[in-house]
Amino acid sequence: MTSTLYKKILPLLISVVSTLHSGAQDTLRLTDLGYIPGSRANATGFVNKALARCKTMAHPVLVFPKGRYDFWPQYAAEKMYYESNTDVIPLRRCPILIEGQQNLTLDAQGADFVYHDRMQPITIDGSKDITIRGANIDWDIPLTAQAEVMAVTEDHIDLAIDTRESPYIIEQGKLVFVGEGWKSAWWDAMEFDRNTRLVVPRTGDASCLGGDFSGYKAEELKYGTVRIVFPFKRRPAVGNMLVMRHSARDHAGVFVVNSKNITFDHLNIYQTGGLGILSQYSENLTFRNVQCVPNPAKNRWFCGHDDGLHVSNCKGKIEVDACKFQALMDDPINVHGTSVQVIDKPRPGILLCKFMHPQSVGFNWAQYGDTIRFIENETMTTIAKGTVRSFRPIDAEHFEIAFRDSIPAALQKGDALENLTWAPEVWIHDSWFGSNRARGILVSTPGKTVIERNVFESSGSAILIAGDANEWFESGAVTDVLIRDNDFRDPCMTSPYQFSEGIISIYPEVPKLDHKTPFHGRIVIDHNQFHPYDYPVLYAKSVADISFTNNTITRSERFEPFHARKNMLTFEACLGTTISGNKMVGNVLGRDVKLIGTPVKGMVLEKRQGIRVVE
Amino acid sequence: MTSTLYKKILPLLISVVSTLHSGAQDTLRLTDLGYIPGSRANATGFVNKALARCKTMAHPVLVFPKGRYDFWPQYAAEKMYYESNTDVIPLRRCPILIEGQQNLTLDAQGADFVYHDRMQPITIDGSKDITIRGANIDWDIPLTAQAEVMAVTEDHIDLAIDTRESPYIIEQGKLVFVGEGWKSAWWDAMEFDRNTRLVVPRTGDASCLGGDFSGYKAEELKYGTVRIVFPFKRRPAVGNMLVMRHSARDHAGVFVVNSKNITFDHLNIYQTGGLGILSQYSENLTFRNVQCVPNPAKNRWFCGHDDGLHVSNCKGKIEVDACKFQALMDDPINVHGTSVQVIDKPRPGILLCKFMHPQSVGFNWAQYGDTIRFIENETMTTIAKGTVRSFRPIDAEHFEIAFRDSIPAALQKGDALENLTWAPEVWIHDSWFGSNRARGILVSTPGKTVIERNVFESSGSAILIAGDANEWFESGAVTDVLIRDNDFRDPCMTSPYQFSEGIISIYPEVPKLDHKTPFHGRIVIDHNQFHPYDYPVLYAKSVADISFTNNTITRSERFEPFHARKNMLTFEACLGTTISGNKMVGNVLGRDVKLIGTPVKGMVLEKRQGIRVVE
Repeated sequence: MTSTLYKKILPLLISVVSTLHSGAQDTLRLTDLGYIPGSRANATGFVNKALARCKTMAHPVLVFPKGRYDFWPQYAAEKMYYESNTDVIPLRRCPILIEGQQNLTLDAQGADFVYHDRMQPITIDGSKDITIRGANIDWDIPLTAQAEVMAVTEDHIDLAIDTRESPYIIEQGKLVFVGEGWKSAWWDAMEFDRNTRLVVPRTGDASCLGGDFSGYKAEELKYGTVRIVFPFKRRPAVGNMLVMRHSARDHAGVFVVNSKNITFDHLNIYQTGGLGILSQYSENLTFRNVQCVPNPAKNRWFCGHDDGLHVSNCKGKIEVDACKFQALMDDPINVHGTSVQVIDKPRPGILLCKFMHPQSVGFNWAQYGDTIRFIENETMTTIAKGTVRSFRPIDAEHFEIAFRDSIPAALQKGDALENLTWAPEVWIHDSWFGSNRARGILVSTPGKTVIERNVFESSGSAILIAGDANEWFESGAVTDVLIRDNDFRDPCMTSPYQFSEGIISIYPEVPKLDHKTPFHGRIVIDHNQFHPYDYPVLYAKSVADISFTNNTITRSERFEPFHARKNMLTFEACLGTTISGNKMVGNVLGRDVKLIGTPVKGMVLEKRQGIRVVE
Repeated sequence: MTSTLYKKILPLLISVVSTLHSGAQDTLRLTDLGYIPGSRANATGFVNKALARCKTMAHPVLVFPKGRYDFWPQYAAEKMYYESNTDVIPLRRCPILIEGQQNLTLDAQGADFVYHDRMQPITIDGSKDITIRGANIDWDIPLTAQAEVMAVTEDHIDLAIDTRESPYIIEQGKLVFVGEGWKSAWWDAMEFDRNTRLVVPRTGDASCLGGDFSGYKAEELKYGTVRIVFPFKRRPAVGNMLVMRHSARDHAGVFVVNSKNITFDHLNIYQTGGLGILSQYSENLTFRNVQCVPNPAKNRWFCGHDDGLHVSNCKGKIEVDACKFQALMDDPINVHGTSVQVIDKPRPGILLCKFMHPQSVGFNWAQYGDTIRFIENETMTTIAKGTVRSFRPIDAEHFEIAFRDSIPAALQKGDALENLTWAPEVWIHDSWFGSNRARGILVSTPGKTVIERNVFESSGSAILIAGDANEWFESGAVTDVLIRDNDFRDPCMTSPYQFSEGIISIYPEVPKLDHKTPFHGRIVIDHNQFHPYDYPVLYAKSVADISFTNNTITRSERFEPFHARKNMLTFEACLGTTISGNKMVGNVLGRDVKLIGTPVKGMVLEKRQGIRVVE
């Protein structure tokens, strides 16, 4: 063998040998530990053992051979976690806890993970380079129920409930679902159309049952058929499905915290007890072929209990690729930070702050070196920026934060802080946003944001860019958003929800609006297809630079218009505005741009579009 | 106040104050710890805390205010127990573990204890002076199922199953029940008559499905209706209920071990995963108003998975008062010891012994000072007695036992030992033995035994006195049994079971019978009512002194006779026999006494009874 050939072959040989070696040593099957898929036995203890073994491996691959794996609370780790936008409870149950792990792949190979009672299917804590692949996450007895509307009269509705999936009792005249270790009263319903699987138009948060029905009386006609007696102000249609909301938002489907480089691939989340995949204080997240949809193997009309992908106070890059969302009971995607309120300035260079929303408390909100924005509360303008020296929690709601430099005197009690370091770049593409409760994408991050090649059939706004320091305390102001090549179909805006002022709604809550100090930065809406049946396509408030260009707006006649806003485009307190290259097809409603507190001077409006200005 | 009056009142005052004091301090309600009855939440953790607190009290009363309490495996103590006549499994789940406790009353006040998955509802270990009162023990998804027979043809049977209570799947053509953490294939059935609730005559262990049907094929007609395809040799009747036996015998309902003075009062055991109340190596047990019956609040046709009260290797006094047994899948009462086999004589004064039955191993079989009987294996005669010096377990099956005195040379390998110290007195009275699988009472103890004022509707023998050292290894020989004033009704002996040779069957398994060396001692059967429809009223084998006196035998015409034994009374290898004062009413079958290896000489047989001798 010549020396040259040797040089060429040696690395190849090393590579082959090392692949074989690591493959043989680092792959662990749950069945190797004695678990029998389909046995219905509790897999939790086996997973605990498997994950402990994975810690001794360099590149562990934990394989769940295809089959059914049941998870029960027994042997589940119970951890004290403050989870963003989630009820505070003493301990979260974590049957699959990936903690302090590196380079792990959990490869479920299409296995069914069947959960029981209230729990958090997968938890990733303090870990790095983790891939979760191929699991179907569901419950036999889910934490949401459904009922077919069998009969409707002026004073009652008869519902058929699958008692195998959602056993219930009638307790003091109320419909109360009873699961594995819990009892949970019904408190709301969402109506889905039998044929289209869409949220029935003009229901959503307007209530398919016409508002407060808490005085109802439930009667059992036979087990599985319940009569709900009440003079409902609105009544659902016979044959439609009611998703019966009950239970609390107490566990995420997957919880990612203090972790980095986390990939979800071909993961089906059919049910959760809260947010689908909740990531907080983590860096670089990839969601590829994640489906939050009703389990297609079951006659299910609902998916998870709340949001799909919820990204709170993360950084690095967030990519959502080829994901699907359908029949969620809250927004499919929400990316945001958490702003906090200044309570006191106890000593120079130190602020006492408070978490304002009861579901978002207890975070390690800032770290040494983080950049913090000081925000004036009324105008939401930036007073200054500071760099963190130290962070000290006081209790779940309060913390003290110290800065390297002096704090501007202008910052007052009641003003807000936003952490600019924990603000990711976002790329959401090639995904489908079906008919869910609420909106499609909520995004509030100063990081570069691209939303492209998606299809939206949201029942509210397709995209909401909010940001506030007064109600939800979800920061922050965007600086660079590109929304292009998306298809906004006509189900968008068929039902009313908070802040849904257009198919794209830019709605920061700024108490004192001034177009000269806009809250949001640059937003480009380019080359999209819109299919509105109603007036509002775009509503934009307090944006420094908004452009709506090269979009095609095609009127749909499928639904009756009802929105109070009677303009196609609305700019409120915006600074730089551009409308050009847009095309309208059919009897598009409004064909106008309404300016509120927005100067017409300096606006770029291409004439040949036929869009008139309404001031 | 005079000194005398003072002396009289002072103790009274002290008593009142101490009663008030202990009452106030020692009563702990589970609700005081925050548990909400009916919430469906897991009560196990709350009970753990409550029992820990009880340990700090002198006379604790743990109250479960009336309501529903759910018990799940999470937080249940898991203990390594060798349980008599029960499968050996690594750990038993003990959600209510009373361990090392004294003077405790658990007062459930009629509460429903609802268990989930496989577990042992109550465990009493190493405790003294314990009372368990007022609980209803049941499962929502029981470990036995039932099915109504909907249709019967030559090649199939259609069954209706309540899928809420007994969810199932069809797996590889087999009917497999799926519960909370388990999957369990159906393996046998018991047929109960729709109208009488009796085990259908001539089924029992003769099989209501005509024997081996393991080649059956299950087909689902609709969820809840299953067709069992097989050319059954016997077919059940349409409308009757089949109790579908599945699952293992892995946990007792209540397990009592190494304890003393234990009382059960008004306890309803509606379901178990094994023996109902299993007591072993304990002293003085009282069962008062214990009911092992199908839950009357549900359409249940079965009670527990196996026996009712199982007393193994206990001592002191056992009292069963006003208890009820119905639809158990094994004997209502079984009191016995465990005989062991001599494997080797390794050193002088020492024997190596073995537990012979795989479900009865691992016991601390003897203690210092216990009296042991050495038994010759073939004749089952006593070789000698010895006193224990020490006991040393070797493994679950083997132990070494040392004696104070020398071991008789006559004792050979293959002979047996019986522990005469762990042999209680038994008093069973005023109880009802309904239609269960197998027999009514099994009793094998040298202690004085009185069975009086009971009603028997057993489907096999009402009373079986066995004792063997060759198959079940359940010792021991009785010495003094009185059976009086009982009512043996006509369902007795309607189905065949092992050793059921008469309504009262005395059937020790003695390989080499000799009436001169009888196994059992004195048995008196006096003043009872018998209602036989078939021949065998009494079968007695190897009894030293048996008398059958002052009984009334009234023929029932309700069922067709079928038993192979065509004599009313049979004595085999008995020594002293007395038959007097008995009265026969109606067309009593046989009206005879069959003597097998039993001398007619010396038999007391009152002539005017009209009972003839058949040799």
